[in-house]
Amino acid sequence: MTIHMNLGPDSYDIVVERGLLAKANEHLNLNRRVLIVTDTGVPTVYSRTIAQQCKESVIYTIEQGEASKSLETFGKLLQTMLDHGFSRKDCVVAVGGGVVGDLSGFAASAYMRGIDFYNIPTTLLSQIDSSIGGKTAINFGGVKNIVGAFYQPQKVLIDPDVLKTLPQRQISNGLAEAIKIALVADRELFAIIEKQDIEENLETIIIRSLNIKKMIVEHDEKENGLRKILNFGHTIGHAIESTQETTDLYHGECVALGMIPMCSSKIRPTLCEVLKKVNLYQHFKCDWEKIAKAILHDKKADGDTVSVTRVFLIGHGEQETMTLTELIELARDCLGG
Amino acid sequence: MTIHMNLGPDSYDIVVERGLLAKANEHLNLNRRVLIVTDTGVPTVYSRTIAQQCKESVIYTIEQGEASKSLETFGKLLQTMLDHGFSRKDCVVAVGGGVVGDLSGFAASAYMRGIDFYNIPTTLLSQIDSSIGGKTAINFGGVKNIVGAFYQPQKVLIDPDVLKTLPQRQISNGLAEAIKIALVADRELFAIIEKQDIEENLETIIIRSLNIKKMIVEHDEKENGLRKILNFGHTIGHAIESTQETTDLYHGECVALGMIPMCSSKIRPTLCEVLKKVNLYQHFKCDWEKIAKAILHDKKADGDTVSVTRVFLIGHGEQETMTLTELIELARDCLGG
Repeated sequence: MTIHMNLGPDSYDIVVERGLLAKANEHLNLNRRVLIVTDTGVPTVYSRTIAQQCKESVIYTIEQGEASKSLETFGKLLQTMLDHGFSRKDCVVAVGGGVVGDLSGFAASAYMRGIDFYNIPTTLLSQIDSSIGGKTAINFGGVKNIVGAFYQPQKVLIDPDVLKTLPQRQISNGLAEAIKIALVADRELFAIIEKQDIEENLETIIIRSLNIKKMIVEHDEKENGLRKILNFGHTIGHAIESTQETTDLYHGECVALGMIPMCSSKIRPTLCEVLKKVNLYQHFKCDWEKIAKAILHDKKADGDTVSVTRVFLIGHGEQETMTLTELIELARDCLGG
Repeated sequence: MTIHMNLGPDSYDIVVERGLLAKANEHLNLNRRVLIVTDTGVPTVYSRTIAQQCKESVIYTIEQGEASKSLETFGKLLQTMLDHGFSRKDCVVAVGGGVVGDLSGFAASAYMRGIDFYNIPTTLLSQIDSSIGGKTAINFGGVKNIVGAFYQPQKVLIDPDVLKTLPQRQISNGLAEAIKIALVADRELFAIIEKQDIEENLETIIIRSLNIKKMIVEHDEKENGLRKILNFGHTIGHAIESTQETTDLYHGECVALGMIPMCSSKIRPTLCEVLKKVNLYQHFKCDWEKIAKAILHDKKADGDTVSVTRVFLIGHGEQETMTLTELIELARDCLGG
């Protein structure tokens, strides 16, 4: 099926279909120079499958992990395009998870002030989350996604078949985002995740999540209002993610933790049951002073107050302003010392 | 006077007025954290005058010259904002020439995916040229402006008084862009520069140039068509600029040279007379093989052909596709071996 993103001159299609990777050139214009960006964690057969369909391609493989979302790697992608004589009419294809998509999307946005960008997300998290919305970014100075651009892809291809090779922990990682979307905007999706078999319903979960996110992003492309509800769980989640030193939690695992304190005490037990079902943590020991500092650095912080999304009713997120102290106390109470 | 740029959600005003620097806060919202970017060639009194009107400001002074338009300096500006806890609601003010404006505009576009950007150009070139159009950029891998973003400022302040401290060679540098605009789109402006006293008409030249550029950019913000005529003289000009090793020509001086071969043989002598009048070169000895290579790297090159703007009638630029060989031969004939 095809989901059409209505964003005026930046409109594009998201195609969801099994076996899409092998026929990517039916949907993308690969009859030019193509920079394929992938990472060491993605099966090489995926990028090679795309390369075979290009007129002229270069595969650039970054190291798996957040550390690759750096100004340095950004420079390397630009250098690669320059070395291969890329013009304004050439393009970038991301084949991988959110790190690959965010980094290469930013590089595509900046090279010659913007060349075509196609995204082929290969993890559940990126299929649900970063494939929609046009947020590209790198991390900088220890802060996640602090540098980047709003830049829409020309097309997004989602092939659910690639999830077959994905480790179970990565599936859980993606489900965290689906749960987030369900909590702030889709009561029925929450019920599916809560009560049905996950594996059987994976395609439904992807498509429902995308449709909700589509609706929100179309109404607020630049995140001035409504779109902020999609940051649900991210204020604390990002802070946990950026401050962890001895642990190595995934993005979705951190967001899952971040959602818990932001739910009302009435909803919290239901959420924790669902998190348990999909193998996501419900508790985390951390240095709350560091967390507070990281939140202050975060883009959602404005002086001593923080704008957060809260859920008092499943399927309905709302914005609230809290002081940093209130937020940290609530988080500590809910997640453990 | 105020020139309003109609660019939908990206609309903004350009205010042209003597003595504007001292009352910048009447036009800009400086009641927040402000990063003021300037360079070592700009009188420090200009940036200090702005700083005095800010609630909270940091002045970052880059080295004068193209070398500062680098990924490294871009990173330093981002780091400075991060170090001073800049949020999405803070802003960047450029006080300087094109290098300062291009670099800090790109940093503003990327920090948190875009914060407010104000431009206060202090050279004639930047007042006429880079203050309008929203092109931000850095140089990379030896290629000028190859990395950047289309990002419109919130407001541009042009204070013609600052030109009083500008060296004469910098005035000539700016006039090259005015001559360019005149040749491709304003026959009357060309007549003013050709026949009238330059100093007396400087404000008129700025305003006329801005109005022409406004009209062109409004019709083609992302440079898909019409706007390409503003690249007149730039294909060869950029190449001369990027390959010079022993000389140190300014941007406008290079563009002036680049315009000569792109005029018809009938117009060429008139142009050369005008260039002479405003102290711009009409001849240049260069290594044409290097120039050819540089053009191939340039964003206007597409394979073996190059899209250039030509002028066969004063006030009327038109697009033409030439082979690289044709272009180089023509340039060599006109500019000297």
